[in-house]
Amino acid sequence: MPRRAGKLDLTFQALADPTRRRMVERLSRGQASVSELARPYAMSLPAIVQHLAMLESSGLVSSEKVGRVRTFRMVPAALSLAEKWFDQRRAQWEQRLDRLGEHLKRFPDGEPE
Amino acid sequence: MPRRAGKLDLTFQALADPTRRRMVERLSRGQASVSELARPYAMSLPAIVQHLAMLESSGLVSSEKVGRVRTFRMVPAALSLAEKWFDQRRAQWEQRLDRLGEHLKRFPDGEPE
Repeated sequence: MPRRAGKLDLTFQALADPTRRRMVERLSRGQASVSELARPYAMSLPAIVQHLAMLESSGLVSSEKVGRVRTFRMVPAALSLAEKWFDQRRAQWEQRLDRLGEHLKRFPDGEPE
Repeated sequence: MPRRAGKLDLTFQALADPTRRRMVERLSRGQASVSELARPYAMSLPAIVQHLAMLESSGLVSSEKVGRVRTFRMVPAALSLAEKWFDQRRAQWEQRLDRLGEHLKRFPDGEPE
């Protein structure tokens, strides 16, 4: 699954920065223009645009330009892929706890080694 | 919440690499020694140790050395923090869809602007 692994690389890399996470938080409440996205930050426009480009190349957001205004949207599918990775880890972890629980029920006083 | 943001930075950065994700996958099935963790990879031991150090500094895993063997464990709390971030985004996204749905019910033919 190299393609999917690559996608998760980009997703997690995009989310490893607080500004980019806040941009995704903003977009999960609805679409926004570049200037709306830039407003909360004391940051140059090129820096904002670079963060947005990284989010877009990860697939977490998409954009559309109408006239002079570029509008960004969240792409929920990219978030789902990352969520799924966590769900799988949790499922494995819980299976492991279940097996430990079973083991403790069968050998409550410890198993002779 | 700068402290928590920093923690998520490290968590997502640690997960942005396929080798480190596979290590977490392995550890979510149970603890493992450095040599068990290294086995699937054609990679130098220092490279393996560096990946593990990055995972450990992110809080996703912890380790304990007994004699000459260092054993790694997953720390589920660090995964939970990241999962929570995704849950919050999903909740916001779904609230937004609900509001859109409400709006469409009230104005099925589109609202005059």
